[in-house]
Amino acid sequence: MKAAQYIQAGKIEYREVPLPEPGPDEIRVRVAYCGICGTDLHIFKGHMDARVKAPQAVGHEVSGTIAAVGGNVHGFKAGEKVTVRPLDNCGTCNTCKAGFTHICEKLRFLGIETAGGFAEYWTVPARLVHRLPDTLPLKLAALIEPLAVACHDVRRSELKPDDCVVVNGGGPIGMLIALCARAAGGKVTICEINEKRLALARSLGFRVINPLTDDPVSIIRSETGGSGADVVFEVSGSEPGARVITELARPRGTMVVVAIYAKPVPVDLHKFFWKELRMVGARVYEKEDYEKAIALTAGGALPLDTLISKVFPLADLQKAFEFLTQTPDAMKVLIQCNDEVKE
Amino acid sequence: MKAAQYIQAGKIEYREVPLPEPGPDEIRVRVAYCGICGTDLHIFKGHMDARVKAPQAVGHEVSGTIAAVGGNVHGFKAGEKVTVRPLDNCGTCNTCKAGFTHICEKLRFLGIETAGGFAEYWTVPARLVHRLPDTLPLKLAALIEPLAVACHDVRRSELKPDDCVVVNGGGPIGMLIALCARAAGGKVTICEINEKRLALARSLGFRVINPLTDDPVSIIRSETGGSGADVVFEVSGSEPGARVITELARPRGTMVVVAIYAKPVPVDLHKFFWKELRMVGARVYEKEDYEKAIALTAGGALPLDTLISKVFPLADLQKAFEFLTQTPDAMKVLIQCNDEVKE
Repeated sequence: MKAAQYIQAGKIEYREVPLPEPGPDEIRVRVAYCGICGTDLHIFKGHMDARVKAPQAVGHEVSGTIAAVGGNVHGFKAGEKVTVRPLDNCGTCNTCKAGFTHICEKLRFLGIETAGGFAEYWTVPARLVHRLPDTLPLKLAALIEPLAVACHDVRRSELKPDDCVVVNGGGPIGMLIALCARAAGGKVTICEINEKRLALARSLGFRVINPLTDDPVSIIRSETGGSGADVVFEVSGSEPGARVITELARPRGTMVVVAIYAKPVPVDLHKFFWKELRMVGARVYEKEDYEKAIALTAGGALPLDTLISKVFPLADLQKAFEFLTQTPDAMKVLIQCNDEVKE
Repeated sequence: MKAAQYIQAGKIEYREVPLPEPGPDEIRVRVAYCGICGTDLHIFKGHMDARVKAPQAVGHEVSGTIAAVGGNVHGFKAGEKVTVRPLDNCGTCNTCKAGFTHICEKLRFLGIETAGGFAEYWTVPARLVHRLPDTLPLKLAALIEPLAVACHDVRRSELKPDDCVVVNGGGPIGMLIALCARAAGGKVTICEINEKRLALARSLGFRVINPLTDDPVSIIRSETGGSGADVVFEVSGSEPGARVITELARPRGTMVVVAIYAKPVPVDLHKFFWKELRMVGARVYEKEDYEKAIALTAGGALPLDTLISKVFPLADLQKAFEFLTQTPDAMKVLIQCNDEVKE
């Protein structure tokens, strides 16, 4: 089969590799689309060479159809549309035993610690495969993985209908969180400094604030009788982001840390005390978040197609990474991994 | 009546002041003891002149007996032992309306924004008075206010029996949190750098770690199969404290911010994401925390008397503040506000 393998920082090679046979508990997926995640971009830039064994195909935001099933696998058959929840947990650490398998202390992330989905076929444990409704377009289905991240973030926030919600950062994950939060009944504002992303957010019907020109804190406070937002998602990963969230949240409000911070940043712990704030971290997703993301995608109410900036063929993965590197306002970029997609 | 009034930074005067008549909804308490809080020490040092109207008696950790009741007050009678929950909320702000009256956006703290308990009598709204069991010694009852802080902190932590608990900071509040957390079934370790406080914590049966000589993170991890503490209370208010709590907490662990931080400090937000941590602020107490603190004190199981470092007469409040300023390892200092205490 063909795969687009990461070779070294800045270099992808499209090449012939052996077609992996599914083990007894595995499924071989014929990949339709595989989205490029921020993590893949980090890999491309050489930041994650400690975790990735080059040459290796990466990629984990996959939609496709079942090509073959292992001998022990029941309940799946060839041709069915599927997506993959790429978290292979150990099952024995304290965190797994406590039920939080998605943040397993020895988690293997399929497509990072193992060969990934930028290939014609992807062979994965059957227990991580989710079946999709037959009517669900596979292009949209490639967004289920990042949408499940957003579903998890919103679930962690415990937001209630009519809550005042601020999403700090309007990239792909911020935008998906905003969509999920609105679907959950939240009244959502997106804070973002990139004008193209602001325009996209506006076109999706969100109220937007550019903190370079307007003060989100005074705007949100004036709209909430001086109190602040019920829920704030920090998706910017910036120092100003960490500063503003404790200002934005109302007394007893919730902040969700979604962004990946490279180093410790100043946080106003006095505000935690004074307003009895709550801050929770949110990482990847659990099984039920995938089920929710599949239901939301299948329901058709979310304008997910609007978030797809461009589709490249598998042979052009190198170009796709270069495009993303040079286009900071791009949203989702998909790789079509087989010449023909079987819908 | 006599009162010890704050005059200016570093200066208290013991003087005759008018005996305040209780209004129709008020109770006049004959003060037995009034503890010195860290906040009172800040006031003595002149840090809070914006909130305190000198000359003014401060103090809010009061035990005493009812001296007189206003015309509208029912259910209380002269001579009954009482303590006071010194939080006068507005009742109309969004935070009060949401039920969080203790962090009211316009909160008046009795003994800070109003005349306080370093006086022979204290007149307060009847709705803030809690009756005490007749058998409860009034000296111990002066610790109910700080104990209610600890009860609130432990309640905010949602700790469960057998949880691994770390209290970071072994001052009076840290020690009371440790006692409450142990009473709730937690297995408590206290981290503290002051040797006298460490010795006191040890004498109370706590496991202690001095982070200047031992590494709390490796100790706690080695005892929890590598995972970390279920609950961490940050009571040190220090930058190293803010750094260590995200290391100490296990995946999905809880941190409670009890300390008052003067300025933003670096926090490892990546750990929030990676371990899906939860951090909550905890400030003062609610009615049920007072009820719990009264029950714990009356139950007699907590060695509260051990935490009383010294008792000064009201006339010597100036000396008491100077003692506390010069004795960083002192725990609780009480002021006896009437020559004779009526038990």
